[in-house]
Amino acid sequence: MPAFSRFTPLVGALPSTVPFVGPEAIERNRGLEVKARIGANENGFGPAPSVIEAMRTAATDTWKYADPENFELKSALAAHLGCQPGNLAIGEGVDALLGMIVRMVIDPGMPVVTSLGAYPTFNFHVVGYGGRLVTTPYVDDREDLNGLLDLVRRENAPLVYFANPDNPMGSWHKAEDVVAFAKALPETCLMVLDEAYCETAPEGATPAIAELIDLPNIVRTRTFSKAYGLAGSRVGYVISTPGTAQAFDKVRNHFGMNRIGVAAAIAALKDQAYLSEVIGKIKVSRERIAAVAAANGLKALPSATNFVAIDCGRDGAYAKAIVDGLMQHGVFIRMPGVAPLNRCIRVSTGPEADMALFEQALPQVLASL
Amino acid sequence: MPAFSRFTPLVGALPSTVPFVGPEAIERNRGLEVKARIGANENGFGPAPSVIEAMRTAATDTWKYADPENFELKSALAAHLGCQPGNLAIGEGVDALLGMIVRMVIDPGMPVVTSLGAYPTFNFHVVGYGGRLVTTPYVDDREDLNGLLDLVRRENAPLVYFANPDNPMGSWHKAEDVVAFAKALPETCLMVLDEAYCETAPEGATPAIAELIDLPNIVRTRTFSKAYGLAGSRVGYVISTPGTAQAFDKVRNHFGMNRIGVAAAIAALKDQAYLSEVIGKIKVSRERIAAVAAANGLKALPSATNFVAIDCGRDGAYAKAIVDGLMQHGVFIRMPGVAPLNRCIRVSTGPEADMALFEQALPQVLASL
Repeated sequence: MPAFSRFTPLVGALPSTVPFVGPEAIERNRGLEVKARIGANENGFGPAPSVIEAMRTAATDTWKYADPENFELKSALAAHLGCQPGNLAIGEGVDALLGMIVRMVIDPGMPVVTSLGAYPTFNFHVVGYGGRLVTTPYVDDREDLNGLLDLVRRENAPLVYFANPDNPMGSWHKAEDVVAFAKALPETCLMVLDEAYCETAPEGATPAIAELIDLPNIVRTRTFSKAYGLAGSRVGYVISTPGTAQAFDKVRNHFGMNRIGVAAAIAALKDQAYLSEVIGKIKVSRERIAAVAAANGLKALPSATNFVAIDCGRDGAYAKAIVDGLMQHGVFIRMPGVAPLNRCIRVSTGPEADMALFEQALPQVLASL
Repeated sequence: MPAFSRFTPLVGALPSTVPFVGPEAIERNRGLEVKARIGANENGFGPAPSVIEAMRTAATDTWKYADPENFELKSALAAHLGCQPGNLAIGEGVDALLGMIVRMVIDPGMPVVTSLGAYPTFNFHVVGYGGRLVTTPYVDDREDLNGLLDLVRRENAPLVYFANPDNPMGSWHKAEDVVAFAKALPETCLMVLDEAYCETAPEGATPAIAELIDLPNIVRTRTFSKAYGLAGSRVGYVISTPGTAQAFDKVRNHFGMNRIGVAAAIAALKDQAYLSEVIGKIKVSRERIAAVAAANGLKALPSATNFVAIDCGRDGAYAKAIVDGLMQHGVFIRMPGVAPLNRCIRVSTGPEADMALFEQALPQVLASL
């Protein structure tokens, strides 16, 4: 299978592994049908009917490129968040924005600080640009702010990643601790504050926009993929100072946003009543998952997200057997990648039909192990 | 407007200029309404009704990420093109794929060969990754294959860009000349063969898939944005050897494709009858544009694309005055960026209403200059 012979040394040496295997690939490779799609922290409650209608209306306009300046979406977001459009940059999901951030900050060999077991797609980008991952373990299933800060200082790192709430554990820190961490960072270190799950977090976990908006080294990333139910639309954004937000214009794909996705995001922002309703359903579903876990002698961790990590009480091999076993029943879930987090399985919230399948399958799987 | 202080030297030095200003920005900045959107080589004839229906149906599935392996789209494309799915890589439009290609091949300071006045977004990516653009002029309004080859050899360049048919001039080369060029290239030089406009090219202009499919240093880029009428969907693909196509997995955003766009592309491939109909309309529209040009004493260049370059017979300032003047009438067009190509204006094909507005406005603009 010949390939071009002169890729850069960096790219030539990159592994061909991918961050995640999708449920469609699992279906194809294992010949199984996914009946409960509760593994990728998608939102099975779906987007608002008003959003679906907006997408259908926008379909006739797909012969046009989207506005490369994303003016309307930025204006709507700024009004919603209480900041200026200039504080924002838009991208094709947070994953794309993470890639841009790494590209803008990391030259080969530079250290990047994150937690051991945190978001693999961020690591994929760090490795892809030749960065050197430096990690600190989770403490009590939470990312360790002190450990991260120590590493940043020790390494004089230009980039640190921190998700609040956290994926894959669903844990969170208080807003005041996040703000204190951000302010304690050297200004030569860019902090990615990944807030993909902020909409489902409890009161007091997410810093107010105003608290960090003047710090040029803090970039908050958010998405329409989770609480808004638009994972397939690929719309994410960053919040920072105007100077830092504008830097994305140097590297982003100016015509990269899909037109229906942008229309969906704008419509979603307008329907906050639906969002509240979904957040309520997510909370109920979290409790449902915890109850199923408890009924099977397993312990659900507290969650601020649209998924629940369940401690299965043994090692990664045991948790993986549960993940694989559930898939045999058509229940697609995932699990953290490294110890000791990988004693857990990770189950996304979703409609009752999905929960019922999970409830039905779990005891059978546990009994078979 | 403070920005983070420690971007890489490369990114810190990048200009904030953007490749294109969108029509929405022109409307906002100049207070004008775009009545005929015939400047961005979009396809005003739009996608097939079957494609719009497929997008509307897919809207309810947007809570799911798209299949990261793009299995179904690759299978459909492979069947359509007569190659294997492994010969393909999918991306968020050709622009995104061009960015990945540059990233995979170019380290700072390396030479990249293209034609003076060719696709600016490719140049944007080259500059963005620190490449050094080396250009050869167009000859008789066509990209100069001999000139490109000479430059590749002289510079020992790892990357060359060539579009067939060409944008912004609409000109083309014979397939056999393109194949001869590709085979004459050193295997250490990756050729981007940009075929964004291949569907509207005349018989004999586009090499058969089989002719280049075994060359690991040839990457053909194609899109659903032009003839298929799906610019806003952001779906592009590359055709190469399996080894080269698979290299994209090292750097691409695996979950970057939007779900409705993928559904649209699959549906569009199925409706080849509609594609043929649109290609017919594009040809009629090209003749319409040429007739309007002739009626105003200007000369339309032959076109293999969904746009027509019109030689306005003077310099870039004169052509720019025509572009600006047409916009005053709500007619959005563009023009090439460098001399001598910029003696031309570039008008996209489109529905009769757009053509009528252009026909009406052009003599008024010319009279006013």
